[in-house]
Amino acid sequence: MRIIIVGASGTMGKYLTSVFEAAHEIIKVSSSSGDIRADITKPESIESMYQQAGSFDALICTAGPTYVGPWANMTDKEFRKGLDGKLMGQINLVLTGQRYINPKGSFTLITGALTDEPQLNFANASAANGAVEGFVRAAAIELGNGIRINAVSPTVIESSPQYFPFFPGEIPTTMKALEYGFRKSVFGAGTGQVIKLH
Amino acid sequence: MRIIIVGASGTMGKYLTSVFEAAHEIIKVSSSSGDIRADITKPESIESMYQQAGSFDALICTAGPTYVGPWANMTDKEFRKGLDGKLMGQINLVLTGQRYINPKGSFTLITGALTDEPQLNFANASAANGAVEGFVRAAAIELGNGIRINAVSPTVIESSPQYFPFFPGEIPTTMKALEYGFRKSVFGAGTGQVIKLH
Repeated sequence: MRIIIVGASGTMGKYLTSVFEAAHEIIKVSSSSGDIRADITKPESIESMYQQAGSFDALICTAGPTYVGPWANMTDKEFRKGLDGKLMGQINLVLTGQRYINPKGSFTLITGALTDEPQLNFANASAANGAVEGFVRAAAIELGNGIRINAVSPTVIESSPQYFPFFPGEIPTTMKALEYGFRKSVFGAGTGQVIKLH
Repeated sequence: MRIIIVGASGTMGKYLTSVFEAAHEIIKVSSSSGDIRADITKPESIESMYQQAGSFDALICTAGPTYVGPWANMTDKEFRKGLDGKLMGQINLVLTGQRYINPKGSFTLITGALTDEPQLNFANASAANGAVEGFVRAAAIELGNGIRINAVSPTVIESSPQYFPFFPGEIPTTMKALEYGFRKSVFGAGTGQVIKLH
């Protein structure tokens, strides 16, 4: 399978690349390194990424910038970070990518436990996640040619201990669980699913 | 109680005004009529609305423009309609309004069944609803001074039969159920809730 991983230079993207590249051709996409550089906050950069990537069977996105910070500082301006990043960035990967992906291909986006289990400072991510999950369910009934779409929803991941203090009492999602979540979406038959790893 | 109703000239807003005004002071807000005119897609218009409204105990929003149309036509441009309207419009009502609302006041936003039950042509609303619901849960743990926040989630409403063909098999939400949903949020004690009327 030919798989695009957006966010390939991040903690999740690196791990997924390492486990999938034994059996599949991985096209690594990142804002600053990889096979293709792309800024998912810019629709024209997404279009250019697909033109460079050529035909593919699956897209995995693990990139989703959001605003993390005190509630008191959150205005329209800060809130737009997650809207342009994790929300619209991922949605545009699908709206544009459906014209490039092979029939029976799949899109797998990233959300997270914050959709339903908020934490202080992360309201922007809760909103972005909720939007992406609503979009995934809606896109599943719209996409043609047998193309599927799912979201993987981890909680704080074990390889990012710097975030543990912000998620008190959360049992971290292991990298193995993360891998299985993406396997289920990419190699399974489900669509419109939010695969919860928490 | 002094209650601001944003979207007061719409089907839901008119009904809620009519049932609440017997016992409460209603400040009617709409883009084109009412006591105050405001465009919720513009943060500065929201700020101006609160300055004109003065002290209040509850804000109800029934306004939420989204893009409704064929999936094939949905690009970043169309998708931004719901992001600026139902999503960011309602979120900005809260981010700004928390500086104006009375202690122990409440915000009640509008979402809808499309969050979890998609229909063709409404992917933009599914995403906007999901974002608002995620935001409501997150804002509930951030707001100070006993301020509460909830969302009311109807399905297609009985007074809008023009939408029935787009919601096959959906039992419409009655206006009475809608009223009860908003009563629960405004006069109850819950916070961070999505009050489902479907």
